[in-house]
Amino acid sequence: MKKQLGPTQNFYPMPCPVVVGGTIDDPGALAVAWINIVSQTPPTIAMGLRRTRHTLERIRATGDFTVNIASTGQAAQVDLFGIVSGRTADKFAATGWTLSPSSSITAPIIDQCAYNLECRITNEVEVGEYAVILGEVVESHAEETLLDQTGKKCDVAKLDPLVYVAGSREYRGLGPKVADAFSCGKPLLPAGE
Amino acid sequence: MKKQLGPTQNFYPMPCPVVVGGTIDDPGALAVAWINIVSQTPPTIAMGLRRTRHTLERIRATGDFTVNIASTGQAAQVDLFGIVSGRTADKFAATGWTLSPSSSITAPIIDQCAYNLECRITNEVEVGEYAVILGEVVESHAEETLLDQTGKKCDVAKLDPLVYVAGSREYRGLGPKVADAFSCGKPLLPAGE
Repeated sequence: MKKQLGPTQNFYPMPCPVVVGGTIDDPGALAVAWINIVSQTPPTIAMGLRRTRHTLERIRATGDFTVNIASTGQAAQVDLFGIVSGRTADKFAATGWTLSPSSSITAPIIDQCAYNLECRITNEVEVGEYAVILGEVVESHAEETLLDQTGKKCDVAKLDPLVYVAGSREYRGLGPKVADAFSCGKPLLPAGE
Repeated sequence: MKKQLGPTQNFYPMPCPVVVGGTIDDPGALAVAWINIVSQTPPTIAMGLRRTRHTLERIRATGDFTVNIASTGQAAQVDLFGIVSGRTADKFAATGWTLSPSSSITAPIIDQCAYNLECRITNEVEVGEYAVILGEVVESHAEETLLDQTGKKCDVAKLDPLVYVAGSREYRGLGPKVADAFSCGKPLLPAGE
């Protein structure tokens, strides 16, 4: 038996990277759960930011931003980037996290986050009190020790990305592998398809 | 030491709901990993669909769609919705999954998925070969047995939502709780803040 719960922003699961805008000398950064890839050609990320956000000003000023994925062991640092405003606290001083130049854009990447995406804004859509920013992923960086055997992408078990759970407002990690995608559904197809 | 990996659509983690468009008699449905909330006011979901997708035609025809979250035990069914086209296979016959009317929109919800969102299209943005659809979440439904003690939202451990891992193209579940959000970062703040 199902129960109607009304309009909601609860959705499962969500990522929880730290998004950085601005420059190394004057950065803005915040934790963002409302973010995901939305296109492959070109690879594009979409994220929703409240329009009053300090970091949004930084992002618009340079027209680019970075997305920095942290591990479950870094939950406290990521959380700090979500609970205070850059207008009142120095989040980098509080976490001890540091920045390095990106290769293709102005916004810097976070050294302590193992996987970093460089994104250039291609579009912005207003949705109520939020700005939905679309950014093309023009470059990515990963810790070499976390790559899989191809050397071209992360081993997700080694990356151990932080996951945000809406509703209960908690952080989790990923569980063990359940099945192979683009494969485990094939036995359900009628013979011959 | 970090390695540059170039432009990429690999991002961690991703959800993997089944999106349904059309009507109960003529539905279109597919698994979508490129989807997330992007606004709270109003609650809005964004998803990227390849513009040639059969289900996209259905979604545009009625101007709405549903997002149906499955559990880790339903990986094979979700996978089937991702590996064949509705033009060549009856995905509902293959999975045995059934549809029920939504309460506020035309597109139906999947009975066997424990959590369902009803979404009405508010905007569409072209991004290369993809359409980014924005939809306001106007209603939600959840299995009563999976609600938390408030009765107003899912207990994510009971929901056990399926997670998609890009790159390695595999399904996972969520791991155990790591920390409380909007809380675990506070000890990093300087005294008095």
